[in-house]
Amino acid sequence: MAGNSFGTLFKITTFGESHGEGIGVVIDGCPAGLRLNLAQIQHELDRRKPGQSAITTQRKESDTFTILSGVFDGQTIGTPLTIFIKNNDAKSEDYDHLKEAFRPSHADFTYAKKYGIRDHRGGGRASARETAARVVAGAIAKQLLAHYNISIHAYVSSVGTIKLDRDFTELDLSQTDKNIVRCPDEKIANQMIDLIQATRVQGDTLGGIVTCVANGVPAGLGEPVFDKLHAELGKAMLSINAVHGFEYGSGFAGASMNGSTHNDVFSQDKSGNIQTKTNYSGGIQGGISNGMPIFFNVAFKPVATILQKQLTINSNGEETIVEGKGRHDPCVVPRAVPIVEAMTALVFADYLLRNKTAQL
Amino acid sequence: MAGNSFGTLFKITTFGESHGEGIGVVIDGCPAGLRLNLAQIQHELDRRKPGQSAITTQRKESDTFTILSGVFDGQTIGTPLTIFIKNNDAKSEDYDHLKEAFRPSHADFTYAKKYGIRDHRGGGRASARETAARVVAGAIAKQLLAHYNISIHAYVSSVGTIKLDRDFTELDLSQTDKNIVRCPDEKIANQMIDLIQATRVQGDTLGGIVTCVANGVPAGLGEPVFDKLHAELGKAMLSINAVHGFEYGSGFAGASMNGSTHNDVFSQDKSGNIQTKTNYSGGIQGGISNGMPIFFNVAFKPVATILQKQLTINSNGEETIVEGKGRHDPCVVPRAVPIVEAMTALVFADYLLRNKTAQL
Amino acid sequence: MAGNSFGTLFKITTFGESHGEGIGVVIDGCPAGLRLNLAQIQHELDRRKPGQSAITTQRKESDTFTILSGVFDGQTIGTPLTIFIKNNDAKSEDYDHLKEAFRPSHADFTYAKKYGIRDHRGGGRASARETAARVVAGAIAKQLLAHYNISIHAYVSSVGTIKLDRDFTELDLSQTDKNIVRCPDEKIANQMIDLIQATRVQGDTLGGIVTCVANGVPAGLGEPVFDKLHAELGKAMLSINAVHGFEYGSGFAGASMNGSTHNDVFSQDKSGNIQTKTNYSGGIQGGISNGMPIFFNVAFKPVATILQKQLTINSNGEETIVEGKGRHDPCVVPRAVPIVEAMTALVFADYLLRNKTAQL
Amino acid sequence: MAGNSFGTLFKITTFGESHGEGIGVVIDGCPAGLRLNLAQIQHELDRRKPGQSAITTQRKESDTFTILSGVFDGQTIGTPLTIFIKNNDAKSEDYDHLKEAFRPSHADFTYAKKYGIRDHRGGGRASARETAARVVAGAIAKQLLAHYNISIHAYVSSVGTIKLDRDFTELDLSQTDKNIVRCPDEKIANQMIDLIQATRVQGDTLGGIVTCVANGVPAGLGEPVFDKLHAELGKAMLSINAVHGFEYGSGFAGASMNGSTHNDVFSQDKSGNIQTKTNYSGGIQGGISNGMPIFFNVAFKPVATILQKQLTINSNGEETIVEGKGRHDPCVVPRAVPIVEAMTALVFADYLLRNKTAQL
Repeated sequence: MAGNSFGTLFKITTFGESHGEGIGVVIDGCPAGLRLNLAQIQHELDRRKPGQSAITTQRKESDTFTILSGVFDGQTIGTPLTIFIKNNDAKSEDYDHLKEAFRPSHADFTYAKKYGIRDHRGGGRASARETAARVVAGAIAKQLLAHYNISIHAYVSSVGTIKLDRDFTELDLSQTDKNIVRCPDEKIANQMIDLIQATRVQGDTLGGIVTCVANGVPAGLGEPVFDKLHAELGKAMLSINAVHGFEYGSGFAGASMNGSTHNDVFSQDKSGNIQTKTNYSGGIQGGISNGMPIFFNVAFKPVATILQKQLTINSNGEETIVEGKGRHDPCVVPRAVPIVEAMTALVFADYLLRNKTAQL
Repeated sequence: MAGNSFGTLFKITTFGESHGEGIGVVIDGCPAGLRLNLAQIQHELDRRKPGQSAITTQRKESDTFTILSGVFDGQTIGTPLTIFIKNNDAKSEDYDHLKEAFRPSHADFTYAKKYGIRDHRGGGRASARETAARVVAGAIAKQLLAHYNISIHAYVSSVGTIKLDRDFTELDLSQTDKNIVRCPDEKIANQMIDLIQATRVQGDTLGGIVTCVANGVPAGLGEPVFDKLHAELGKAMLSINAVHGFEYGSGFAGASMNGSTHNDVFSQDKSGNIQTKTNYSGGIQGGISNGMPIFFNVAFKPVATILQKQLTINSNGEETIVEGKGRHDPCVVPRAVPIVEAMTALVFADYLLRNKTAQL
Repeated sequence: MAGNSFGTLFKITTFGESHGEGIGVVIDGCPAGLRLNLAQIQHELDRRKPGQSAITTQRKESDTFTILSGVFDGQTIGTPLTIFIKNNDAKSEDYDHLKEAFRPSHADFTYAKKYGIRDHRGGGRASARETAARVVAGAIAKQLLAHYNISIHAYVSSVGTIKLDRDFTELDLSQTDKNIVRCPDEKIANQMIDLIQATRVQGDTLGGIVTCVANGVPAGLGEPVFDKLHAELGKAMLSINAVHGFEYGSGFAGASMNGSTHNDVFSQDKSGNIQTKTNYSGGIQGGISNGMPIFFNVAFKPVATILQKQLTINSNGEETIVEGKGRHDPCVVPRAVPIVEAMTALVFADYLLRNKTAQL
Repeated sequence: MAGNSFGTLFKITTFGESHGEGIGVVIDGCPAGLRLNLAQIQHELDRRKPGQSAITTQRKESDTFTILSGVFDGQTIGTPLTIFIKNNDAKSEDYDHLKEAFRPSHADFTYAKKYGIRDHRGGGRASARETAARVVAGAIAKQLLAHYNISIHAYVSSVGTIKLDRDFTELDLSQTDKNIVRCPDEKIANQMIDLIQATRVQGDTLGGIVTCVANGVPAGLGEPVFDKLHAELGKAMLSINAVHGFEYGSGFAGASMNGSTHNDVFSQDKSGNIQTKTNYSGGIQGGISNGMPIFFNVAFKPVATILQKQLTINSNGEETIVEGKGRHDPCVVPRAVPIVEAMTALVFADYLLRNKTAQL
């Protein structure tokens, strides 16, 4: 119950601290017989890794992984699949001055209160470095989903006040990784990049929004009443560092619509497939997928580490000044794209397995 | 894994269908020695029950409950606490014409696809009638929380396009139940009521937003990394019928802020309590409560049942017309207030118990 | 985590006390589309119910059940299946003299220590009356297993010092219910009945052993490493009131055998089925079923309530005398036969569902 | 649900195969602030490790462990505690001839049936090498239990037909590790050692029984009704490789006793402590500890790998001969002693934490 596991049948447990030996993940429940594409796992890690572009932190981590268990002859064998990523470029001395200070809007204070002891180096367990383990697990989940023709595409839809107004149906999502901010509209992408660079110069940071779309999800995934598909997706997203909001389908905008507009009318195409004419439901009705594309937005707050002096208190309750050192992202959303995809893949992999026992 | 349980240590399982024998809940894990206030449980049920005012459905349910187990001499005894609410006013014949038709934006189609069979009467298990069981369990959780001086207050902050602009810190939340729409600002409340009544006349429906505030939550609740406090709150809210979005603290607006503004600076008051000057974190940092008020917004889509003719298809894939009969709410948010509070209370009760083992 | 649930995918939660409103069970995870045979459920309850013969307690309970949820048109629909059995013949006044006394070898003392409060009437939650709920759930699990051609047969193999020496392969298990002690060997059965009646006259009680055999279990059920099939069967059996031991296959006797004798040699029959020539493995190897019959023994201690005066202490630590009143079994094993079968069925139903995701 | 986790609040997940990279464990839920004694962890591993004496397998593994996460400044910090043990002396080529053959009474056949693919090298995941990870976790659980003055002592009470007749209360358990067979009676120990050596010469193997005693367990541990303390201990023991039986307190012998003899009469000593005069209950009543010593027996079948030719079949169903190569134990019980203690410690650590929420 200590919160480091996610999923029920396709279940992961992550471990590791930012400046410890490394981070890793145990996947328990991956079906046997899945041939792993290791290059694809590395590719996903590379999309998340620090130092990948001019707009990310300059911490250098090769983020190469080692499989510790669960694979034989290149395939999963039904036993726990464990993957470990060593930490290489941890500069713990950058954090010595923070040993006693509680950085504003970080987890320093709350970890100290909860556990009575904390690893202050690089944020310890609270660091977003933990998400590398999620990306590895998600890359494997994606390979499982590929057998079911389910694909997942996330992209950056806003950075600070720069917003991409077009709907995902109007975008070419294959363009997402063509630029370093991972926005599939080149013009907006450039505005975002400019804003991030200008903000970094000021020692300040930005938030943003990631939008995610899943195609090919068959009707029937989701477990009423508490484990509705969107409830689990919401939890998955809200568990990512810095996320402050989640909405699917019509989302918050739906709250000001009328039912007569919002209702998605069913129709049947020539092949006998049932579809809805609109998709305010976001592909989910009653907590269960209906076969339409599933889409949602994830809001990230601005990065808490700023390169400016801030007043705060220390563990003795005394006022003190902290100033961001270390290497940090001015805006996390470009690197959050593969994390959002990973968590989405983990939810679908789990719900695919869960659905196998719905009917006699 | 079938999704009808919520919580880990304070764990509930709900059961029942809209037009079956009734609905109920088993609470497993409520500590022994809690003296129950039955009138308060009934009070919460009454806040949720149908037919309570001019702007709700006219289904008449007394929603009186029976305790089937777990209480002796007025106290909990550590054994499963089971409560049952009989269905009285189920008019199943109102649904006969819908036996084969898939109502737009309902769960009819998805349940049929998932289970191969469904109880079409009143929405069966997908009906929001199931939330009465949550309200009962939440009322008991609230009584547990009262021992820890934690209180929860939800209210309606928007209905359709009518929005309450003021922050919860500027409102007198004790006024919430003074009007039938449960908005603590009387003037806005009246506008909301007028809009609901006007919309009902047109056979149409509305969505809205419920805001919830928890006071007195001690620092330390929350389980990193997947079971962050706000992740579980998000899941809890998204599991409520018709919810399409969740945000806490700065929420979606936070995504367009800068870090230098968004960071919540710590300070210590004269009594030695640590506080933050602003509260964009919504009382939660790194997934753990920091002692400040916790607050969040929950977006509800408009009610899917409208009293208008709609085109749809039936289980044979043929086009057919459905028209809302039965008794329905034009807008669910006034009745959702106690449901939001109940789910919030269940999360805190669970996390209070979970936190008992954080330190040696 | 409060211990009132069993199973993972076919999951039950029981509730209720001996002298409360009644007892019941919620089954969450039964696949949709199972047509229930209600008469068979009642039949299993009748095999367990008190007052069924001259050698059981004379408490009279009709043990008729009500379905509160989860069934529509006679079939399961994928929603929680709840069944309730009202208590009718609870004579709580028989227990008034025991309100403060801790009966020897009962759960009075330990419940008082654990919870600080207890329902003393009829043993409260610790009463074996709770097992009626298990029998109901097990009867439904049996109906699920019948679709997979799995059958379960338990019988009494010892009562006190009277033992049935023959192996299950030499017995006609269809004879089990032909006598009131449920031993398939008529001669031994009569000796057992005589012993029970002679012991009852002395106000004393007996223990015994139930043997259980499952036929038709396909190879592949079981989840290494902690949830080995026999580990879960063991837990299931040890969770039944009064059980003090569990052994499968060669069991305790196997501990004094040599490997060269104990190893079960594989062979293939003409139809290509792989079998073992001996079955010391009890149908389970490495925690996974191998297709051979699964069998095990369950040891029950003698009933703790004796109709004799016994010295004990009360909640003030003072010495006091208790004397069994109320209506009690001189030996529980005849009534334990359907309980052992029920718990076995629940394990297999759960593991059948769990196995659905073992391979891609 | 894939079976590689054990415990609920003090929860472990083990991973690794006999001839893979190594084996390890993640502990999620260990309270923060526990100062670890690493030498004691190594000591427990050394008690289990191969090659430790003349009567064990000659595989040489140093079994040194690396902490991958969860420890800072020598203490636990509330985050997942991960420990890894590299495999060094895996001679996989010893198993090449077994790639297709199903060794009698091993898990080869059942893993192949369940997963469709298996790691045949050294038994893969089914190897008892996995228990090294349990011993590490158990060593940490023991350190947690020491804070509560709970101690656990297991010993060998039978090897083949050589049995130690005396009860644990008549033995000096501090003598257990004084001889290589871990029987606290020197004379019987020597007989056991002689038998093991004589049996090994014949290429044959032996089973045996391990008895375990826990002192200092406070009254109140155990979670009725399914998670009774002895039910979880039983599952824990039955999950250890080669275990075929579990009994606690009076065990199977209790089944032939009368209630008037078997009942444990309560009394109070001068200090006001409540005790029972006899302890047929094995320290557990109604599934909850009563403060008396807890004791149980665990039966191990003879080792399946014998150094003799055996007829079997291969994956094509053809008859073939296998002959044990590799390095194997003639009798596992001496090395099983620390494993039994480890699993016992894990159960108590978990139930101590679970009990923290029993009362308000």
